[in-house]
Amino acid sequence: MAIERYDIVIVGAGPVGLLLSTCLARWGYKIKHVDMRPVPTITGRADGIQPRSLDLLENMGLKHGIMAYDPAKVYEVAFWDPQSGGKGIHRTGTWPSCPKFIDARYPFTTLLHQGLIERVFIADIEQHGTKIQRPWEIKGFSSDGVDKEYPVEVSLAHVNGDEQETVRAKYLFSGEGARSFVREQLKVKITHKDPIAHVWGVMDGVVKTNFPDIKMKCTIHSDAGSIMVIPREANMVRLYIQIASSTDPDWHPRKTATTEQVQEAAKKILKPYTIEWERVEWFSVYPIGQGIADRYTLDERVFMGGDCCHTHSPKAGQGMNTAFLDAQNLAWKIHHVESGFADRSILKSYESERKLIAENLLNFDAQYAKLFSQRQPSAGEVGSANIQTAGEQQPAEDNEFMKTFKASCEFTSGYGVAYNENIFNWSQNHPAQSPLFLSEKQGTTTQRTGRIMTPATVTRVCDANVVFLEQEIPLNGSYRLYLFGGKPSVTKNAINDFAAGLTQKGSFYSSYKRPDVDAVSHLEKHNPHSLFFSIATIFNAHRPEIEIRELLPEVLARYFDHVYADDIWDQRVPNAKAAAHAKMGLSEDEGGVVVVRPDGYVGCVVKLVDGSGTVDALNKYFASFTAKSLGGNRAQL
Amino acid sequence: MAIERYDIVIVGAGPVGLLLSTCLARWGYKIKHVDMRPVPTITGRADGIQPRSLDLLENMGLKHGIMAYDPAKVYEVAFWDPQSGGKGIHRTGTWPSCPKFIDARYPFTTLLHQGLIERVFIADIEQHGTKIQRPWEIKGFSSDGVDKEYPVEVSLAHVNGDEQETVRAKYLFSGEGARSFVREQLKVKITHKDPIAHVWGVMDGVVKTNFPDIKMKCTIHSDAGSIMVIPREANMVRLYIQIASSTDPDWHPRKTATTEQVQEAAKKILKPYTIEWERVEWFSVYPIGQGIADRYTLDERVFMGGDCCHTHSPKAGQGMNTAFLDAQNLAWKIHHVESGFADRSILKSYESERKLIAENLLNFDAQYAKLFSQRQPSAGEVGSANIQTAGEQQPAEDNEFMKTFKASCEFTSGYGVAYNENIFNWSQNHPAQSPLFLSEKQGTTTQRTGRIMTPATVTRVCDANVVFLEQEIPLNGSYRLYLFGGKPSVTKNAINDFAAGLTQKGSFYSSYKRPDVDAVSHLEKHNPHSLFFSIATIFNAHRPEIEIRELLPEVLARYFDHVYADDIWDQRVPNAKAAAHAKMGLSEDEGGVVVVRPDGYVGCVVKLVDGSGTVDALNKYFASFTAKSLGGNRAQL
Repeated sequence: MAIERYDIVIVGAGPVGLLLSTCLARWGYKIKHVDMRPVPTITGRADGIQPRSLDLLENMGLKHGIMAYDPAKVYEVAFWDPQSGGKGIHRTGTWPSCPKFIDARYPFTTLLHQGLIERVFIADIEQHGTKIQRPWEIKGFSSDGVDKEYPVEVSLAHVNGDEQETVRAKYLFSGEGARSFVREQLKVKITHKDPIAHVWGVMDGVVKTNFPDIKMKCTIHSDAGSIMVIPREANMVRLYIQIASSTDPDWHPRKTATTEQVQEAAKKILKPYTIEWERVEWFSVYPIGQGIADRYTLDERVFMGGDCCHTHSPKAGQGMNTAFLDAQNLAWKIHHVESGFADRSILKSYESERKLIAENLLNFDAQYAKLFSQRQPSAGEVGSANIQTAGEQQPAEDNEFMKTFKASCEFTSGYGVAYNENIFNWSQNHPAQSPLFLSEKQGTTTQRTGRIMTPATVTRVCDANVVFLEQEIPLNGSYRLYLFGGKPSVTKNAINDFAAGLTQKGSFYSSYKRPDVDAVSHLEKHNPHSLFFSIATIFNAHRPEIEIRELLPEVLARYFDHVYADDIWDQRVPNAKAAAHAKMGLSEDEGGVVVVRPDGYVGCVVKLVDGSGTVDALNKYFASFTAKSLGGNRAQL
Repeated sequence: MAIERYDIVIVGAGPVGLLLSTCLARWGYKIKHVDMRPVPTITGRADGIQPRSLDLLENMGLKHGIMAYDPAKVYEVAFWDPQSGGKGIHRTGTWPSCPKFIDARYPFTTLLHQGLIERVFIADIEQHGTKIQRPWEIKGFSSDGVDKEYPVEVSLAHVNGDEQETVRAKYLFSGEGARSFVREQLKVKITHKDPIAHVWGVMDGVVKTNFPDIKMKCTIHSDAGSIMVIPREANMVRLYIQIASSTDPDWHPRKTATTEQVQEAAKKILKPYTIEWERVEWFSVYPIGQGIADRYTLDERVFMGGDCCHTHSPKAGQGMNTAFLDAQNLAWKIHHVESGFADRSILKSYESERKLIAENLLNFDAQYAKLFSQRQPSAGEVGSANIQTAGEQQPAEDNEFMKTFKASCEFTSGYGVAYNENIFNWSQNHPAQSPLFLSEKQGTTTQRTGRIMTPATVTRVCDANVVFLEQEIPLNGSYRLYLFGGKPSVTKNAINDFAAGLTQKGSFYSSYKRPDVDAVSHLEKHNPHSLFFSIATIFNAHRPEIEIRELLPEVLARYFDHVYADDIWDQRVPNAKAAAHAKMGLSEDEGGVVVVRPDGYVGCVVKLVDGSGTVDALNKYFASFTAKSLGGNRAQL
């Protein structure tokens, strides 16, 4: 019997494995996905979806399903400290969890049981023809290259050992979590940035309390210990309590505590408030050491992501979010290599981009966790400056903890994710050079390469719907070209020349035409010509003034559902006539082109000019990582 | 065998029957619900959800389920007229379907197949223990009063005649649609406001066209006839075409047309644009005469609603929306009578309130339909003034059609629904009199009794969530008391006195305590003390300044989840410090109390003062329709 072949074998159906599976299933890949648990997560585990991750889920069409579970939303974090004289805790301040300086669509953290989040992904994966095989585990693998197209052999088995299966695949991905068989086999080491390990207790349940901030995220320090409060869906609350630290004199990583012990500790910490449990849904004690895998892949065939590559304290709610972004980053890169768009070398950037983010996370976490586990100075020690004055929106004095917290808001919201300059993220050092590239450093655009595009609200021309521009093109594996068209009367020639450049033989756009381009339905909105590019055009004009088929050459007019009027006022740029143009830092008259990677991060920004310059610059940009050489020879036309 | 008894028998599972069933099932009533169709609507029928209805669906927690189907949204309506010289049609202007002068949360019409909307209701009804019995029909009924508690006997049968059942009920409701057995039996006449009848063709399908406004709502007049375009979910479009009118010389109400004939007509009308059908999902031809039932009930036991009571042209998209509001209006009134809160006489107001709205609808429809079916003057006839100038947001000249249309926006959005003064809708003529009642006529509040409360965005204190105040109390059958608390320092005494008045023996509030008040869970948010009242308190203060248990007396602090900070800036009242207070037309310092009926319409507005006055006024207001006498005797305390 011939050995079964798959594009990818994915081990583990937690957040990282599920998101990867969802993307690849949608894009038509053949997936073998196994998980050693018989069913999805029943209780406990991660639960925090950061603002930026909600954008991502919306972009995948999955936000609706998650919000249907009516999750808790955290808009503010409250800080509680001990009062002098044994009077128990008092609130020293609150801070927005995603402050206004961050331009977020959803400025809150969403809290929902991981199992419910998994269900939303699983339903989508099944709709696209992949079924997760449970309870199955990986028993062995070798990237032996015996079959050049399917170089990885993977052995899988039912956890009870009754059945086994050996398959070949182009890729193997481990989303197994902190205890990863694949990582062990690869002998990839975990580096501990912070040598201090902790034992954590975590308890989900329904409580009766007169503690006023029980529906907010709180960090509470008291003379009796520290605790973190996280609200949950269905009237639940999660408490994190630190049970032991490797800095304790009697430290033991196996130290544990019972439900009752943790409840008693919580009662003491919360004084003068009272707390009683009506129901405990889940309780667990586990040791966590901060760690990061030295490598995310050795050969760009066997990859790892999520907790498998980075572990840290659970308090900043980053685990699931970092896992999502690991998976998203890898998904489109594998897709571009396997579909012949990009050179195989781009796969190296998975590790370089994502490991940097994990390192930043761990640095942040070390600071944050250290402060959290230290007893804070009491009100008496700090003095009256620590008491919040009514009417002030922020504490009168920021202690070290709050300073770290504030500085980290951008990071924890997910909007701080910033990839370094590389082949995708244009910089002065990029192989593609042209005076038309705009850059944030030079002040010619606000858009920073390696960061997400600024959100902007616009009016869709064809149906007059008011929409979020950054959400209009779904996560479809395509680069997003945002053609900011400025004033139609000013840019008429530039747009015609841009369109001519796109259709020119050898351009980045025409080199990657769909093979079925002539058979594509007129209902196709995002990829009428190419599976690797979606184009949106935004004019500085009122919606009724824009006649799509009159203003745009055919190649652009074909994106009939992706033409927008930049005519919605925005509080952040109150004086702009064309708010989206202004937010991108582009001329409201002359526009410009913002190229966004399939994952929503800005690749490059180019001036929109008469002649071939704009497309020439884009040809150079894409040629630096596409499989074919681009730019063609004009004379050949 | 004893005859089975029900609180209500509902006949028909279209929008009116389903919404009534949903409310009553949630509030614990025993329902027999039958429908003669074997399954919910498969194709065709109504599809337009107006902005105000979306508010209602959200208030019922059903909007999520409907939006999950990804319906089309209509933000603008385009008008097309003939050009001179046989050049076909051209656009003469567009108009927002819910213009900015209406303060709507969702300023668009939602278009979705009726069957999908029905499914959302049916799932909810089944969750609450009622199952729709299909295909069953009503065979007879008599409101014989043999059983005083269950005065109505109803005979039901399977449509194939094999099975039958006779039951007794407190109420019978017909939501049977235009051909109502109940209405016929009651010999209730239909009055035709407008003697002109029409035959309509309606076609749902997927088209391929270069007509640029195919994703907008359009009214198109051409020399070859008139058509209305309505976008639909799943790339579909609905076309309405008038096939015959009783004003035609060869008028026949049975006149019909084939799919092909309607398609040919559409092709001619749309010239110079082309249109082809890829798929026709549904096509139907039906005669519609404008009509309104003389009575909605004869004895306040057998009621009718929806199409059973009013028929009109389908074009303004009002059918389903009016049906929803019929049902909602009846639901809480039956609930208040049957639960002993209100006097039985309030049931008379169902007909008086809802028939007025239907009459307004028919008046509007007659005007609108007449204009629609008339050929519009061509551009040549009208002159160049009819050509829209680029840059203008509205047509240079409004013809009669557009004038009517604009004037009707408030009405079609659902926000124009205005109930006359009566026992619920306070006025100078109301039996309850006090100098503390505020009124829009006197300019002491902006809130108009019999109209919905103005929407306002506020911050929930307990969890810092930014929320829609008008959505915070769900459709739970309770009156909503919005205590606008002004500045806490100013209103301290008034609020204490208000709370003292509420808890006073004999007050409207304490007279309708829950029988299980001592056993109510601390998790109950909306009805901790009474099933007939939910209270929200809104302070003119920043969220972190509000310590609920310090600022509010116990009775109000118990509504811990319904205390809000009026600290969100609103573009409509840009200079207000407390936007919600300002929008209600209340003093930002001193506040006031807005009493809202269970259906969201304002009942009365009362000044918030020191002493007993505020509650005294409310006691008088509620005493005018509650079952018990209120206000008590202060000396009795």
